[in-house]
Amino acid sequence: MSKDKPDIIAKMRTLISETVNHVGELAIVEGWVHLRRDHGKLIFLSLRDRSGMLQIVVNANVSEDAYKAVKDVKPEFAVKIKGIVKKRPDNAVDKSSIAGSVELEAKEIIILAKAETLPFDMGGKNLNLELPTLLDNRGLTLRHPKIASIFKVQETLIDSFRQACKKKGFTEYQSPVIIPQGAEGGSEVFEIKYFNHKAYLAQSPQFYKQIMVGVFERVFSVNKTLRAEPSVTTRHLTEVTTLDVEFGFIESWFDVIDMAEYVIKFMIESINDQNADILKTHNVSIPKMAAKIPQLKLREAQEIIFKRTGRDNRQDPDLQPEDEREICKWALENKGSDLVFVTHYPVSKRPFYTFEDTEDPGYTLSFDLIGQGTEWLTGGQRINDYNKLVQNAKKRGIDLEKSEIYLQAFRYGMPPEGGFSFGSERITMNILGLKNVREASLFPRDMERVDERFSH
Amino acid sequence: MSKDKPDIIAKMRTLISETVNHVGELAIVEGWVHLRRDHGKLIFLSLRDRSGMLQIVVNANVSEDAYKAVKDVKPEFAVKIKGIVKKRPDNAVDKSSIAGSVELEAKEIIILAKAETLPFDMGGKNLNLELPTLLDNRGLTLRHPKIASIFKVQETLIDSFRQACKKKGFTEYQSPVIIPQGAEGGSEVFEIKYFNHKAYLAQSPQFYKQIMVGVFERVFSVNKTLRAEPSVTTRHLTEVTTLDVEFGFIESWFDVIDMAEYVIKFMIESINDQNADILKTHNVSIPKMAAKIPQLKLREAQEIIFKRTGRDNRQDPDLQPEDEREICKWALENKGSDLVFVTHYPVSKRPFYTFEDTEDPGYTLSFDLIGQGTEWLTGGQRINDYNKLVQNAKKRGIDLEKSEIYLQAFRYGMPPEGGFSFGSERITMNILGLKNVREASLFPRDMERVDERFSH
Repeated sequence: MSKDKPDIIAKMRTLISETVNHVGELAIVEGWVHLRRDHGKLIFLSLRDRSGMLQIVVNANVSEDAYKAVKDVKPEFAVKIKGIVKKRPDNAVDKSSIAGSVELEAKEIIILAKAETLPFDMGGKNLNLELPTLLDNRGLTLRHPKIASIFKVQETLIDSFRQACKKKGFTEYQSPVIIPQGAEGGSEVFEIKYFNHKAYLAQSPQFYKQIMVGVFERVFSVNKTLRAEPSVTTRHLTEVTTLDVEFGFIESWFDVIDMAEYVIKFMIESINDQNADILKTHNVSIPKMAAKIPQLKLREAQEIIFKRTGRDNRQDPDLQPEDEREICKWALENKGSDLVFVTHYPVSKRPFYTFEDTEDPGYTLSFDLIGQGTEWLTGGQRINDYNKLVQNAKKRGIDLEKSEIYLQAFRYGMPPEGGFSFGSERITMNILGLKNVREASLFPRDMERVDERFSH
Repeated sequence: MSKDKPDIIAKMRTLISETVNHVGELAIVEGWVHLRRDHGKLIFLSLRDRSGMLQIVVNANVSEDAYKAVKDVKPEFAVKIKGIVKKRPDNAVDKSSIAGSVELEAKEIIILAKAETLPFDMGGKNLNLELPTLLDNRGLTLRHPKIASIFKVQETLIDSFRQACKKKGFTEYQSPVIIPQGAEGGSEVFEIKYFNHKAYLAQSPQFYKQIMVGVFERVFSVNKTLRAEPSVTTRHLTEVTTLDVEFGFIESWFDVIDMAEYVIKFMIESINDQNADILKTHNVSIPKMAAKIPQLKLREAQEIIFKRTGRDNRQDPDLQPEDEREICKWALENKGSDLVFVTHYPVSKRPFYTFEDTEDPGYTLSFDLIGQGTEWLTGGQRINDYNKLVQNAKKRGIDLEKSEIYLQAFRYGMPPEGGFSFGSERITMNILGLKNVREASLFPRDMERVDERFSH
């Protein structure tokens, strides 16, 4: 039994997901105690590691030592357990669990770290806490498998975003957080004291990704964007991880909308492939996607909504939340799609660098992707002509004085280009049907909270 | 010749790297004019796209139209060119260029965007500018192939970092930029006005990656870290893209140092595999790596340096820059390695959460990786016991009052754990032998510059 030598044991950890391949063998597992159930001389633990959950059987008649060691063990203790992997009887197999066909009969238990008594039960399938409690205890609540799974989906989304872009010849670049001024002239910008100067936090990588088109033609970035959002809604955070794409040598803005469709579909399909079990846990399925996501001009969408509901928002420069829901209903009923592109927003509603449609003056070559009743993504073609860009900025009262390197990119030959942007938290929320975007951010920041709740 | 129809042309762009597969055919290329040479009725352009450089021949006798169109074309014009791909004579082949065996005989040239006259020549193999000029014109200078190539290497480094971590079962998470207080009690922290409160910019994801060990056991992150570095050196920036790793259930701190060795070697080998051409352009090769990177305690290193140079820094709590260079010389001469781990820094020189070596009191289970004479990476085992952690923070005057969720991670069972961190700009600089870290940052920020130079 050379496996018993302490220095060898050290290297012999078996992940819980692997135990099923070691039936009848001695194995060492490590993880956190998820649940404990006492039945006299028989104690059951659910052990949780990064790969799954395993039933541990501590039987006083099998190992007195293990039974003694487990005496004070409570949920969230970190432990190392040596034991024999045993097949569970057919009628006790838990098919929903990766190691549900086996259990470990404990021979030896080592406590790696103790835990205080939990402030609430963490052992259920769901963690039914009010949002403030969930967030006040984020260092603990993130461990709950269903909460943690949200961030596995987020990882897949960001990862598959990168993969989709790479397949299309894009280069990933690093966009700065500290900027010389609010790039798009917005007011909701955080100011920082920068030595003897003022600087600001980037609300978007817009200027930088456009500069990078001049360097690599096709670029993408995963950014931290910061917005001094002065309201508390279920959809807004002050810190967001945005996914940005920008590329040049487009033939028309359709290249941009097509690329957006390709990327978002790739991401959604990746979730379906890689996180099917998590979708099941959250009781959701991926959005219905037609072969081609339907495209409507804003005015067409408003006309449809008017006809369907009698709500006349045909003069609005944007869709109201109820309109977003209605147009998605229409798309699902008529086009078999949970997603719909709404295009041609008025010039006045889009940033100064947005390309106006020469065939539809007053309206821009811009689009939003509306998914399951809410905005997912925004994009469009940009003005690539230097003089026009500068004129447009002036017309809108945007000061580009501190944006010299942005202007350079256009002064020295910028091809026709466009791009799009979306927030990873918003997409995570939508895919998993979460009610509040804070649930889709590991450490959400808003007016009222930066980790701790501000006391007023 | 259906290829001539404008609507078909649109979709027929050939990347420069692909032209070699279309000898004798009509092709459409797009890109920027890198160089222009006039020889009367014969004009040569070097055209640059994201895949490489191509010689364009504009012969007035072949196409009057193309010759007219090219009349005013200057460097950095964005153009679309239709022409015939021709093999170059053997003695004119440029083997250093991906399309150096062919050229395009222009039939038609369309100007997509004009460029003003360049402020300096961008056509040479090197862009020999003083650093301030290089940075003042970043929107232009980044386009130079040798400058751009720095950021292809950086992309590979970050990408291979992710790959290495994933191979070892790590989960990528998103670490916040806005934090409630300076995590490690440092003073060089940027403060932001956060509505009616104060908040700060993260100098490191340290607290958050440790929290995440409780969630996924093994985590990594690519972070924007911000440090109010009040000095101007060749090695420091105020904004850095750091690569961070943290993982639990370690058997000893050797697991941490071994993981660091694995990750860094994987990254360096990836550069060698994927960017060999760029290494050549920069006239560098990857660092020499021994089968096992040598490990020395700080005191052993100081003893070696004393013996080799007579410099007696044996009482210093850290290596001086000249010592870092000397110990790398020693490692190369004696161990055939450009890289060396220096371990066991004194307790006083490391953050409060660093694990003290019980077998070598006063010294920590921490390490720096010194490469080619400068610090590359820093890491170590952390204190995972809640009470010890809180005691240590108090002893060092660190206020953890606003770090409740950090404390929760330890209060509820944190297994033995450790990790490491390094800056992607620093590594890029070292691998490519750049003289200043600003060259390895797309948009470097320091005391004196956020895009624009501050005027005093």
